[in-house]
Amino acid sequence: MEKKLLSEAEGYELLKKYGIPTPENTIVKSADEAVKTADKMGYPVVAKIISPQVVHKSDVGGVVTGIRNNEEVRRAYDKILKNVREKVPEAEITGIIIEKDMPHGLELIVGGRIDPSFGKVITFGLGGTLVEFLKDVSIKVLPIRTDEIEKMIREIKGYALIKGYRGEPPKDEKELVQVINNVSRLFCESDKLVEFDINPLILYEKGACAVDARIYETEGEVKHEEKPQTGVPTEVFYPGSIAVIGASSNPNKVGYAVFRNLLDFPGKLYAVNPKREEILRHKVYPDLISIPDTVDMIVVTVPAAVVPEIMEEAGKKGVKLAVIITAGFKEIGKEGAALQDKVSGIAQKYGIRIIGPNCLGLILPHKGINATFDPANPKPGDLAFISQSGAIITTVVDWSLKEDVEIGLSAVISVGNQADLGFNEFMKFARDDKDTRAIVLYIEEIKNGRLFMKVAGEVSEKKPIVAIKSGSSKRGQKAASSHTGALAGSYNVYMAAFKQSGVIATHSLREAFQVGELLASEEYPKGNRAVVITNAGGFAVLSTDYAEKYGVELVDLPKDLMDELNSFLTPEWSHENPMDIVGDAGADRYARVFDVMVRNQDKWDITFVIAVPSSVLDSRQLAQEIVRFSNHTHKMIVGCLLGGNSMKSGVHILRKNTIPNFAELEEAFDVVGKALSIRGEQRVQA
Amino acid sequence: MEKKLLSEAEGYELLKKYGIPTPENTIVKSADEAVKTADKMGYPVVAKIISPQVVHKSDVGGVVTGIRNNEEVRRAYDKILKNVREKVPEAEITGIIIEKDMPHGLELIVGGRIDPSFGKVITFGLGGTLVEFLKDVSIKVLPIRTDEIEKMIREIKGYALIKGYRGEPPKDEKELVQVINNVSRLFCESDKLVEFDINPLILYEKGACAVDARIYETEGEVKHEEKPQTGVPTEVFYPGSIAVIGASSNPNKVGYAVFRNLLDFPGKLYAVNPKREEILRHKVYPDLISIPDTVDMIVVTVPAAVVPEIMEEAGKKGVKLAVIITAGFKEIGKEGAALQDKVSGIAQKYGIRIIGPNCLGLILPHKGINATFDPANPKPGDLAFISQSGAIITTVVDWSLKEDVEIGLSAVISVGNQADLGFNEFMKFARDDKDTRAIVLYIEEIKNGRLFMKVAGEVSEKKPIVAIKSGSSKRGQKAASSHTGALAGSYNVYMAAFKQSGVIATHSLREAFQVGELLASEEYPKGNRAVVITNAGGFAVLSTDYAEKYGVELVDLPKDLMDELNSFLTPEWSHENPMDIVGDAGADRYARVFDVMVRNQDKWDITFVIAVPSSVLDSRQLAQEIVRFSNHTHKMIVGCLLGGNSMKSGVHILRKNTIPNFAELEEAFDVVGKALSIRGEQRVQA
Repeated sequence: MEKKLLSEAEGYELLKKYGIPTPENTIVKSADEAVKTADKMGYPVVAKIISPQVVHKSDVGGVVTGIRNNEEVRRAYDKILKNVREKVPEAEITGIIIEKDMPHGLELIVGGRIDPSFGKVITFGLGGTLVEFLKDVSIKVLPIRTDEIEKMIREIKGYALIKGYRGEPPKDEKELVQVINNVSRLFCESDKLVEFDINPLILYEKGACAVDARIYETEGEVKHEEKPQTGVPTEVFYPGSIAVIGASSNPNKVGYAVFRNLLDFPGKLYAVNPKREEILRHKVYPDLISIPDTVDMIVVTVPAAVVPEIMEEAGKKGVKLAVIITAGFKEIGKEGAALQDKVSGIAQKYGIRIIGPNCLGLILPHKGINATFDPANPKPGDLAFISQSGAIITTVVDWSLKEDVEIGLSAVISVGNQADLGFNEFMKFARDDKDTRAIVLYIEEIKNGRLFMKVAGEVSEKKPIVAIKSGSSKRGQKAASSHTGALAGSYNVYMAAFKQSGVIATHSLREAFQVGELLASEEYPKGNRAVVITNAGGFAVLSTDYAEKYGVELVDLPKDLMDELNSFLTPEWSHENPMDIVGDAGADRYARVFDVMVRNQDKWDITFVIAVPSSVLDSRQLAQEIVRFSNHTHKMIVGCLLGGNSMKSGVHILRKNTIPNFAELEEAFDVVGKALSIRGEQRVQA
Repeated sequence: MEKKLLSEAEGYELLKKYGIPTPENTIVKSADEAVKTADKMGYPVVAKIISPQVVHKSDVGGVVTGIRNNEEVRRAYDKILKNVREKVPEAEITGIIIEKDMPHGLELIVGGRIDPSFGKVITFGLGGTLVEFLKDVSIKVLPIRTDEIEKMIREIKGYALIKGYRGEPPKDEKELVQVINNVSRLFCESDKLVEFDINPLILYEKGACAVDARIYETEGEVKHEEKPQTGVPTEVFYPGSIAVIGASSNPNKVGYAVFRNLLDFPGKLYAVNPKREEILRHKVYPDLISIPDTVDMIVVTVPAAVVPEIMEEAGKKGVKLAVIITAGFKEIGKEGAALQDKVSGIAQKYGIRIIGPNCLGLILPHKGINATFDPANPKPGDLAFISQSGAIITTVVDWSLKEDVEIGLSAVISVGNQADLGFNEFMKFARDDKDTRAIVLYIEEIKNGRLFMKVAGEVSEKKPIVAIKSGSSKRGQKAASSHTGALAGSYNVYMAAFKQSGVIATHSLREAFQVGELLASEEYPKGNRAVVITNAGGFAVLSTDYAEKYGVELVDLPKDLMDELNSFLTPEWSHENPMDIVGDAGADRYARVFDVMVRNQDKWDITFVIAVPSSVLDSRQLAQEIVRFSNHTHKMIVGCLLGGNSMKSGVHILRKNTIPNFAELEEAFDVVGKALSIRGEQRVQA
């Protein structure tokens, strides 16, 4: 995209139009005019060159600051012209701008740019080189609400300076919010603006002033692709009859694996293959049309070249959903893309919705549907997993079945090339699906980021969404791009977009599922006030470390609560939160503390019950007490039965009662902290 | 400790004595003298008040900078006196210091203080308020070598400014090293200095200048407690005969649990209890003296009050090591401390070494010794675990036995109150113990930090040490202090001390043992050049993310290596590192890539083999190929067989062949990155 730098004066004018304060300024064409202007304006003033060829004015001696009288103005005028003519002989000089020299204040940066995935974004940070390489900036995808701007300002570490550091008076935060608001509005409303940096925006105890602005406009128009949102009735995902196109009796073929996985499907199942008569004791039809019944969904495993033909047949047959596992479409290049477009066209003509192509398929464990070639079959549970990588699905499903993991799934969807249905439609399906309580996404790339945010924002108000986005590294971004064949937006913008739409970001798959499980298994915590009960001093210390690290607040115990605990605990107990009730604590001692916590449940939001193996502690009994505790409160109870075999039966009881348990203490606080983080975001939104 | 602030002039003098450049300066007592001095010095100059009562000179108008001529000096002199007399009427004014106004440059801070655990430490960072709250500082425990100073400077993010940011010329790093070196020497050699801040130290393209220094001296003398290092022959830990004092047949008693745990001991085992005749089919002796044989080691489980008497008996019997499990000593307060001193005194008299008191005991699985009341018994293995919390030992041992963990231990030592033997002696024992290949520490508090560093530095040159230190949070530091009854040093100083002595710090127990296992199971990697081989594109992307996050370098593949791979891989492979050899890769395809890597092993240091479940990949076969691969190189091979049951037999084969495997990809890179981090430190030290 060709872009053009606005001149200083043009920039000021644009900002002024949107109510963004700029210094008083005038363009002059002679030294005399400069003196007259400055004199009228009042000293001190600044003089700067105006020339389309000079972008970095200071570097060529095109700026003089702190001009204090008529004589200095004249000298500055001459010097600037001389410098620029010497250093940039080709520069066309429009004139020199004389502007009011603004007093010192806190220097900030407000910038804007267009992200390939999410469109217009705004960045905010402190000014100066130091901050630049410390990367202490916050990012938001536009448009933003005022409360989001307020958060944006408070997100940076440098906020301490705005608030008033070391007894300095606070700066005009209200005005700053207003300026960012105006800048955002300006950016949103413009069809031309593509990039800008207001650097510095000076913030005072009262007021602010944008004293320099580098603003780029495009010659063309900023594209604003907004693919319309398509509604998909949930029923489309719950077929009564399924046909596998390319079903095979050869165990090495995908068509065999898919058909075998679907044998448990309680609805009607058909095999289609012109070359076979029977597969796994099922009659085989030569084509879709020959099936005597209606077919709601097809699973396509035949070669790419045949797929258009199959889709025509499916259209005539009244198929509603096609899961196209077949690869060889857009991901292989131009030719494949054309074939994919052809398939999409046919589907649109007949109103068939597509999952894929180039995907692993769809699993709905509660419905007995496993339309994939995955060798393992997940257990029914609460989490919907929507993934942009089939191999990651296979891995997660295999892992989910491990004895000490045992995560159940409500839906597993491999999005593939997203020729038709994509993350947005699948998130909405998961929101409406009664079996789903939380949603986990594995994302490599999102094309229409703004639509994603809109949908995710709506969905996350009903059901929590946890996402892991790959491509955080430079090399990773390159790898992701070669993997999916598309340019990925900046990772930081993804993180900002997730936050703004209530999506919890995690760094690893295990963490993503742990957070998902936590949010699915319990009510969201209503706040982050936590108490810790433990029989081990060492873990009491570690739990305070982890609490601080992950943003969980350990509350102080009020006196009456302390008195109550003192009435039955042995004097060695820690007398504070974390409550170390000492190594000889049995389940009964825990239970008595739980009773106190139930009676005082207005004073906390989360209880971590930490227990380590000991000869006097029966893990089963403790687990039963934890269950009873949990039943008596609406607060979040997190089990941390640490160790191995000693805790096995206790852990089993907690799992059966959907009480989260963590075998590694740091993970417990990390995961709870993540869950709380988004709670905070939502609270502000509400 | 009473401390006294040195005056500006005194401070300058002290710095000058150690070759630290300071601005030319003179104290004047009148305006005339000020003018004369400044005139001689040359303008511009700075004038500052000198008064013991004025610490923050600027705040009371006690400083004037940028004085450019005689008239301004006179005005400044009068103004400073007026300001200070007004604002601090009680101030005794010694005079006014006139000093050369140094030109602008990069403002840095060099500070020093005395840490309760580690003694004199030095901190370094950029100047200015901004950096102060961004906490971009590096810390070192003194004394330090020049190469450590060089690293210290490069550790801060702000180093970019020293190196020359955005085309600015680099600053005089060599001079900076020299200044920090001189400051360190000054601090080390002083008996008086307790705290100082050179702020700012201005660094130029050539040279540096300390233009302001707040230096505190103590009236007394800085204490320099250096407990002499005691040598313990390794044999002391390998007793031929053990007696349990307080052995019991009551299963609820510690004396029962300990005796039962020792039944497998292959040497001679004796029960001592005046009230019993037989315990678990063993004859019971009424006291130590009655045992007809020599006794090398005793395990004490009787009440605290009786322990001195037992120690007297033990001394007479020639006992070499007493494991005192009994609690009720220093940890309960003054009275207990006196009792502990008494016990120590008796032990010293007879030359008995003590583990504990107030500890869980000692386990040496390879020797059949379990002198603890831990209900579980660890498997023999390579890791020595030395812990300041008994409950954490119990938890770790229980966890280590889990089917999918299976970590073996060479020694488990609960340090307890460290009345005699402590971390230092135990680390040396582990270094000399033939069964130990790596050491894991759980630390709440170290008393003599300098001695710890000396020992850890020596030991870590032979065997890797991994440590988890609790008390990183403010609240945690308080909890740790109430748990161990002692003031803990700052967490950051611990981290600096660990780094300086080659100790790898981790945040969680799981991570500590994973890093320990990695370092025990394989040769240290010789560098951080890594290659990744995988059958899953999604994990290829994630592995690049994690590599960047944890400091593992993914090398580019040279052309000849690429050519070799192209000769047999299908064209869909990624053609780069991470090598995605595509979803249909079987063990044979992995094996052919391994062969290429063996032939090119000069080009990498670590290979990550990532595999996800697939119908064409047999995990057992792949694991065998990985073992063969590992046998053919001296490089580090890290298995990442991801998933669950599909990978079980493969994981089992890797474990049997001591090849590390990780079920969660992020952990693999995190742990390898940690192991590499210390490698880097040691390389510089060598």
